[in-house]
Amino acid sequence: MDKILEITLLYDFYGELLTQKQKSVIELYYLDDLSLNEIANAHNITRQAVLDMIKRTEKILMQYELKLKLVDKFLKQKDKLKEVADKLDYVIEEYHLGDIKDVSLIRETINSILD
Amino acid sequence: MDKILEITLLYDFYGELLTQKQKSVIELYYLDDLSLNEIANAHNITRQAVLDMIKRTEKILMQYELKLKLVDKFLKQKDKLKEVADKLDYVIEEYHLGDIKDVSLIRETINSILD
Repeated sequence: MDKILEITLLYDFYGELLTQKQKSVIELYYLDDLSLNEIANAHNITRQAVLDMIKRTEKILMQYELKLKLVDKFLKQKDKLKEVADKLDYVIEEYHLGDIKDVSLIRETINSILD
Repeated sequence: MDKILEITLLYDFYGELLTQKQKSVIELYYLDDLSLNEIANAHNITRQAVLDMIKRTEKILMQYELKLKLVDKFLKQKDKLKEVADKLDYVIEEYHLGDIKDVSLIRETINSILD
């Protein structure tokens, strides 16, 4: 998985277990896409200190996942649900079920879980 | 929600963040259904100490959920998926789709997520 996506996912799941400062650097770097220098200036610390804090925080997030494995569980469920959505689309097309209201509702509910 | 089910779910999600001793009392009390006295004897501590530790550990688990809300998210997704399963069963019955192999596969995959 792409590093940015991985950290963003981990942060989405476990971010609330971080300190305010740890949350701030992850948000500025990964979500707001600021450079290390820009974050250093904003926090009035060195570029190296920012880099160290990002690395340390990434490690904390990864350790939570190593213990809890909730992102992994979530991604596996999502894959299965995508499989369901794809098969359903095929069946709807193949057996002309598109006009059945309950079938459309099923499809919409699956999409709302996948979003 | 029933207290036993609630703590069991919270333990299932966040148990790996507890200490070995905290895990042990929760498992003995909630999963193995031992009495406070039995746990006290097993750990060679007082009944009151066991009770205090269970209460404290329950609180820790609840605080993780207050922060992360992952059990809540999981239960809401499960409810939606049950809704999908029920509607699908209705459609299969109503439109005689039970013999279509892909429909059975969709139903099975949904069940495997719900298990």
